[in-house]
Amino acid sequence: MPWKHSHLVDVDVFSEDDFYVVLEEACKMEEVMERPLKKVPALRGKVVANLFFEPSTRTRTSFELAEKFLSADVINWSASGSSVSKGESLQDTAKTIKAMGVDAVVVRNREVGTPEYLINKLSGTCIINAGDGARAHPTQALLDLYSAWRHFGDLKGRKMAIIGDILHSRVARSDIHAFSKMGVHVVVSGPRSLIPLHVFDLAEYEPDPKKAVEGADIVYALRIQRERQEEGLFPSIDEYHNRWGVKTELLRNAERNAIVMHPGPMNRGVEIESSVADGSRSLVLDQVRSGVAVRMALLFLYLAGGAGR
Amino acid sequence: MPWKHSHLVDVDVFSEDDFYVVLEEACKMEEVMERPLKKVPALRGKVVANLFFEPSTRTRTSFELAEKFLSADVINWSASGSSVSKGESLQDTAKTIKAMGVDAVVVRNREVGTPEYLINKLSGTCIINAGDGARAHPTQALLDLYSAWRHFGDLKGRKMAIIGDILHSRVARSDIHAFSKMGVHVVVSGPRSLIPLHVFDLAEYEPDPKKAVEGADIVYALRIQRERQEEGLFPSIDEYHNRWGVKTELLRNAERNAIVMHPGPMNRGVEIESSVADGSRSLVLDQVRSGVAVRMALLFLYLAGGAGR
Amino acid sequence: MPWKHSHLVDVDVFSEDDFYVVLEEACKMEEVMERPLKKVPALRGKVVANLFFEPSTRTRTSFELAEKFLSADVINWSASGSSVSKGESLQDTAKTIKAMGVDAVVVRNREVGTPEYLINKLSGTCIINAGDGARAHPTQALLDLYSAWRHFGDLKGRKMAIIGDILHSRVARSDIHAFSKMGVHVVVSGPRSLIPLHVFDLAEYEPDPKKAVEGADIVYALRIQRERQEEGLFPSIDEYHNRWGVKTELLRNAERNAIVMHPGPMNRGVEIESSVADGSRSLVLDQVRSGVAVRMALLFLYLAGGAGR
Repeated sequence: MPWKHSHLVDVDVFSEDDFYVVLEEACKMEEVMERPLKKVPALRGKVVANLFFEPSTRTRTSFELAEKFLSADVINWSASGSSVSKGESLQDTAKTIKAMGVDAVVVRNREVGTPEYLINKLSGTCIINAGDGARAHPTQALLDLYSAWRHFGDLKGRKMAIIGDILHSRVARSDIHAFSKMGVHVVVSGPRSLIPLHVFDLAEYEPDPKKAVEGADIVYALRIQRERQEEGLFPSIDEYHNRWGVKTELLRNAERNAIVMHPGPMNRGVEIESSVADGSRSLVLDQVRSGVAVRMALLFLYLAGGAGR
Repeated sequence: MPWKHSHLVDVDVFSEDDFYVVLEEACKMEEVMERPLKKVPALRGKVVANLFFEPSTRTRTSFELAEKFLSADVINWSASGSSVSKGESLQDTAKTIKAMGVDAVVVRNREVGTPEYLINKLSGTCIINAGDGARAHPTQALLDLYSAWRHFGDLKGRKMAIIGDILHSRVARSDIHAFSKMGVHVVVSGPRSLIPLHVFDLAEYEPDPKKAVEGADIVYALRIQRERQEEGLFPSIDEYHNRWGVKTELLRNAERNAIVMHPGPMNRGVEIESSVADGSRSLVLDQVRSGVAVRMALLFLYLAGGAGR
Repeated sequence: MPWKHSHLVDVDVFSEDDFYVVLEEACKMEEVMERPLKKVPALRGKVVANLFFEPSTRTRTSFELAEKFLSADVINWSASGSSVSKGESLQDTAKTIKAMGVDAVVVRNREVGTPEYLINKLSGTCIINAGDGARAHPTQALLDLYSAWRHFGDLKGRKMAIIGDILHSRVARSDIHAFSKMGVHVVVSGPRSLIPLHVFDLAEYEPDPKKAVEGADIVYALRIQRERQEEGLFPSIDEYHNRWGVKTELLRNAERNAIVMHPGPMNRGVEIESSVADGSRSLVLDQVRSGVAVRMALLFLYLAGGAGR
């Protein structure tokens, strides 16, 4: 069955079948990563441009490795913030990259809607959203889903508690779409000032983190951006850690076999306790590993149509 | 016929035959770029170092893609301005790069004459000028020529108007050499403070842009560097745009089928009107695409001697 | 004979046999570098991450070329100093890199002991020290040894004078271990404020540089970091050059066929005279070239176990 999507803006348009196609393809890619020779020629002669307008070593490197394992040629387009602050320049930058013979653009930008903007301007070039503002981060959601699915198998009927700054989190938004579509009951918790209204269709809001994690199989700690504190959106770091930090104590309320996830990089001692981050319940490093496998799967599906490898 | 040049400093030493060899080689390279697998093994096991002392994402990436499509290994040598401000350091940097086993150095530097300096210091290593000060930018001239030649076929007897800051433009200098050698009548126009004296051998100077574009087949807008205005070399941006900007209105004086070119990145609303930049006469994106093909052709000619592919 | 070491922290643990294995492997790698196609598939499908927390174009590029000549995939992890100033972050960064499927980490850091720290945290990933603080720089020592060995053949009974800031030099420390183990008599010289106490087991200290180079076959000038002068550790640059600079005059005291070495980049006119740096006795560019060959040898030994190529 060929892959029917042309671009990856967010996972909200994925059917349950779509999710399974990605998960199963990622399994195969993880097998490739386990081989002594971690390389397949699937995208040989294809060029992928990584267009990161926000600094990100982690996600960019994960994409870069995925691209190289698939034998694609990789261009890292270093863009100063200033040269793309105007939409017009972003357009010219993108058209330039396309004209150079690029097959796919992986883009991260502060501005919500950048992927659609590029899709509109660059007909014929596959656009992969690597995070746009506080809106969507679909590859993170898919790697989170993959990690949890590999751990638990079927996710139907499971409970997930996402804790932290839901308001500014593109990870939370995309995860809520992905996990709820796969039958997971998603509860969000965090300081009221950091909770948006619109999540409530797909996720439940529970102000008390202890209640939020009650019966949870997955406890997901979001990264706290310290500037939110300066904006007065939550009290002190210590108070945050005491009430919302994912700690051994908080986990006592969760399921006995609950796992802990975090998108990284972690602020140890803030949104997550070090002993939890490194503990046996932590899936943090599985998530990193899954990131490469899932991005390989996605690049393969979007650029090689999912046909034989 | 083997390629007889060892280095590319500027196109002023090219014969008409040389230009045709590059143009025809670039055609073959453009075919490579159109294949599903955009890669030939021509330069496998060769190393090209991109040594850019002036920031340039666009030209550097164009070279990098050309190198990768030819299967060369690529080293991007990141040099802080300070470490190479003295000629002595530049020499040591270059000798170091050479000693590492590099086959060609693509160099951009603020200082005129950098390519000859390196040729002198690094016997046996091919040097490609990617722009030295206000002097020469031969690969830009060749890609401009290629774009125009692909559009019009034979260029003999055509007229080209280059408009803008001729004085500080290495693009203008190299383009005048390339186009006039190929039989194009080149007219330059721009504020008198931005016109040098020495162009007049090969190009005509016409102060009035309307007259300059009269009968022109090619209208070439140069990039305006805003610091020139602070230096008092031209009045306000608005005045510049009104008088010298390449606009629909100005193009009424050109040939009916005239094309518009620009080396990029464009200052829309300054030296070029947005509707012209994106209009059907604009060759801007062809130029970008041609840039990769022409650089592939040049790297192939210089490093593989032009022998079979 | 398989290579018995798993990581490269410093050369102090190398036996004489170990040194010879590296030297002979590097010879084979230098032959690869002389081929028209400078590439062997030895590390195809392996990933090496270059994790440089101190700026270094030279050493990083040397490693990068070595990795590419061996067909490894290369990740340059760009780390801001701040994100890894705390040990905890360094650990998370390293674990993240490992989880992405990296086979070896080449690390440079200001903090002594970083390699052991990473070895401890990342079981199963090969760690190569590319310089940790003022402690060790084993790949520099091995390339220095290789250059001298290629020049002289057997080094037993030779004399080496290392001149400069011994106190802060990781190069001096590793070179003293490597050369003395290979039977070289090492004498160090430099301003007393820049001489540590602990070198004296393996090297002799001679305050007078003229006496230090007496009968020396190898005169090694260390790079002077100008901030040491501000710290009051030596008088003026001129005085330093006069007394400790490696000049034609100073070399009159050395053996007639003595060679001059320097780890680069050179401060011409400070620790080395330009005419000496460029003279026939200078091995400086051999050292650069050897750097790639020796790093290829090391990556091959550590990652492919030294088994057939």
